[in-house]
Amino acid sequence: MSHTIYLDNASGTRLLDEVFEEMRPFFTGEYGNPSSIHTAGATAKAAVEQARERVASLVGSKSEELYFMSCGTEANNTAVIGAARASAKKGRHIVVSSIEHASVANAARALEKDGWDVTVIPADSNGFVDPGDVTRAVRDDTTLVSVIHASNEIGTVEPLKDIATAAREKGVPFHTDAIQTAGVKPVDVDDLGVDMLTLSASSFYGPKGAAALYVRKGVRFHPILHGGVQERGRRPGTENVPAIVGFGKAAEIARRDMDARNARIIPLRNRLMSGLESAIPKLTVNGDRISRLPGNLHVSIEAIEGESMVYSLAKKGIMAASGSSCADKTLKSSPVLAAIGVDPALANASLLFTLGIDTTADDIDVVLDVMPPIVERLRAMSPLWEG
Amino acid sequence: MSHTIYLDNASGTRLLDEVFEEMRPFFTGEYGNPSSIHTAGATAKAAVEQARERVASLVGSKSEELYFMSCGTEANNTAVIGAARASAKKGRHIVVSSIEHASVANAARALEKDGWDVTVIPADSNGFVDPGDVTRAVRDDTTLVSVIHASNEIGTVEPLKDIATAAREKGVPFHTDAIQTAGVKPVDVDDLGVDMLTLSASSFYGPKGAAALYVRKGVRFHPILHGGVQERGRRPGTENVPAIVGFGKAAEIARRDMDARNARIIPLRNRLMSGLESAIPKLTVNGDRISRLPGNLHVSIEAIEGESMVYSLAKKGIMAASGSSCADKTLKSSPVLAAIGVDPALANASLLFTLGIDTTADDIDVVLDVMPPIVERLRAMSPLWEG
Repeated sequence: MSHTIYLDNASGTRLLDEVFEEMRPFFTGEYGNPSSIHTAGATAKAAVEQARERVASLVGSKSEELYFMSCGTEANNTAVIGAARASAKKGRHIVVSSIEHASVANAARALEKDGWDVTVIPADSNGFVDPGDVTRAVRDDTTLVSVIHASNEIGTVEPLKDIATAAREKGVPFHTDAIQTAGVKPVDVDDLGVDMLTLSASSFYGPKGAAALYVRKGVRFHPILHGGVQERGRRPGTENVPAIVGFGKAAEIARRDMDARNARIIPLRNRLMSGLESAIPKLTVNGDRISRLPGNLHVSIEAIEGESMVYSLAKKGIMAASGSSCADKTLKSSPVLAAIGVDPALANASLLFTLGIDTTADDIDVVLDVMPPIVERLRAMSPLWEG
Repeated sequence: MSHTIYLDNASGTRLLDEVFEEMRPFFTGEYGNPSSIHTAGATAKAAVEQARERVASLVGSKSEELYFMSCGTEANNTAVIGAARASAKKGRHIVVSSIEHASVANAARALEKDGWDVTVIPADSNGFVDPGDVTRAVRDDTTLVSVIHASNEIGTVEPLKDIATAAREKGVPFHTDAIQTAGVKPVDVDDLGVDMLTLSASSFYGPKGAAALYVRKGVRFHPILHGGVQERGRRPGTENVPAIVGFGKAAEIARRDMDARNARIIPLRNRLMSGLESAIPKLTVNGDRISRLPGNLHVSIEAIEGESMVYSLAKKGIMAASGSSCADKTLKSSPVLAAIGVDPALANASLLFTLGIDTTADDIDVVLDVMPPIVERLRAMSPLWEG
C-alpha cells in the first residue's frame, strides 16, 4: 500500500516484517501437524507452545489458560455461548453492554433465540458502562457478564476493573472482549480481575487468523466447535501453526514496544483531533476524550454522509472508516452510536480514524489539509447543511 | 524438514513455494480488511473474490455458493449443525456414516445432546457405505445425510454419487466431507450430486487456516458463529486474506497438476503396498485396494503397537502416523477401524502412510529397507507375537 495514509488500523494492522520472518519457516518448511507424534509434529507443537507462552506473558495468564482460535469472533462466541451453555443448569440469564462488538452482541442474540434471557446494560454519552448497572442487572440465574474493554468504534476504554469486580462480587463469571486493548495497552487478567478475555493478533501487527480466549482455571465453558482433541479438546481443527507463531511473536514485540508506540501515537491522534475540531465547524468527537484507545478518533461531521467522506478521502490516498468494518451495511446506523445517544443523522455522519505505528506527523498534516475542503464541498451539496 | 521422508500428508501438506509467493503480498503489504470500503479494502476484497472463483473452478460450483471458513472442522460443523438447525421445524433426524471424521461424528453427537436423533449407517469391511442403507435410514423427519467422500484413515473412496442420489431421491439434502478428495482427485458438485461439500486447502499443498463449505443455492443452513456480516452474513470474522489467497492458488494448481501428481503417487503407493506385503508376514492392508485415495496406505501389523512403530520410523527420519491426527489419544482404538470390523488388537497395530508430491522412489526403498527389521525387533519384544 504505497502512497497511502492508512488510518484504519482498527480493521486490521500491518503485519510486522519481524513477525513475518518468524512465521516464515512454518509455511513451506516446517509444515508438520502439531498433533502428529513424529519429529515434524513435535517441531510444530513446540512452536505453538512457545507462542502460547508469549501470548500468556502479554496478558499475565498461565499458558494453559489460553486457547488458540481462528479469529476474535470465534473467541468471543466461545466465551459468551460456551460459558452460558456450560452453566445452563444453573440459570439462563446473561448480561452484556449496549456497546459490544457484533461478535458478542449477536452471540447474546443467538442465546436469546435458544431461550436465554439477556439484559443489555446501557452506556453513558461518553460510552462508559456503570459498574452499578452490572450489580443491579445480576440475578440469581445470571451465569455470565460480558463487557467490552474498549469500543472498537468510539474508542472509550471502560473502567473494566470496577465492572469486573461488580460481576464477581455477585459470584458471576466475567468476560471481556479485549481485542482493541490487548497488545495496545497494558492488559493483565489478574489486575483486571477477569475470568475470560478475548484477544486477537491482528490488532497489534500480528497475522490474521489467530486469536485466543483466556479462560481462568476453574471457569467452565463448552466448546462451540466439535471434532478432534486439539487445544486440550476445547478447540478442534488443525492448528494454524504459522499464524499462531506470528501471534506469539507479535505479542512479544507488543509487550516490549507498547509504551514507545503509544508515546508516538497518542500525540498524533490528539493533533488530528484538535486540528479537525478547529478547522471544521459542527464536528463533534464521540467517546471519551481521556479514557480512550491511543490511536482512535471517532467524529461526527454534521450534514456529511460518512461513507461519502470515506470515498472522498480514499481518492486522496487516505484510508479511514465510517464505522466498524464488521457492521451490517444494511443497518441505517451503528448500534453503538445509538446506545450512547448520538442522533441518527449525526451517527450517519461519522468517520473513524485509527492511527498506528506507521502514522507520521506528515500524514496528519495531509489529513488536516485535505479534509476541510472535502467537508465544505460535500456540505455545499447537502440538503441537510444550513451553514 | 531436511533429511526426512514425510509420509504424513493426510495430517497436512507442504505449502508450495508458488502458493506462498501468491500469499506473500497480503502479509506485510496489502493488509487491508476486505470489509473496509476504501481502496485498501477493495484490493483485499478483490483478492478474496479471485480466490473464491479459483476454488469454485476446482469443484465445479458457482463462486457465490462457497463460504470461506477457518478450517475443515468448522466447515463440517457448519454443514451438519447449521443445516440441521435450519430445518429443526421440519424434523430432528440426521443420518451419518460410521466412518466419518471426528468433525462430522462429534457434530452429530452435539446435535444428539440437543435432542436430535442420529442414525449411524455402517460401512463394510472395505470401508464402503451402501447407498441402500441411506435409503433405508431416511425417515419423514430426516433433514440431512452426511457421508465422507473418502476416509482420511483407511483411504476408501466411497461410491458417493450413488450415496448422494439415495439421499436426494428421498428429498433429503446431502453433505459430504471431501477434505481428502477435493484437490486430490476430480470432485465436481454437480457430477457427484451433492448439496453441501467441505474442502480444505491444507489437503492439497495450500495453507493451514483456509477451508470452504460449498452450499448449493437454495439449501438452507444457519451460521454457527455470530457477529459481523462477512461471507454474506454466513461466516462472521475478519477474512484471513493471505490464507484465502493461498487456498485459491493451491486450487488452481491442483486442478492443473492433479493427474500428473496422481500418475506419480499411485505407483509409488502401490510399490510400498506390495513391498510391505511381501516383506512383512501378517501385515494386512485396510480399506479398499482399488477405490482408494492416491497417496494412502493403511496397514495393520500383527503384534506391533502402532505408536511404537511411528516412533521407531521417526528415529530413521520417516514420518508416518498411527491413525488420524485429530483422533482422541485417550481412545483405545480408532472408531473407523472398529466400524469396518478390524479386531481391536489389530487396530492398535495400525500404521498410516500418506504419500505426497515430494515422495520419491528412493523414499519408498528406504521405508522398505528399514521397516522389516524394525517389525522383527518389535515383534521379538512383543508378548503377542507367536511367530
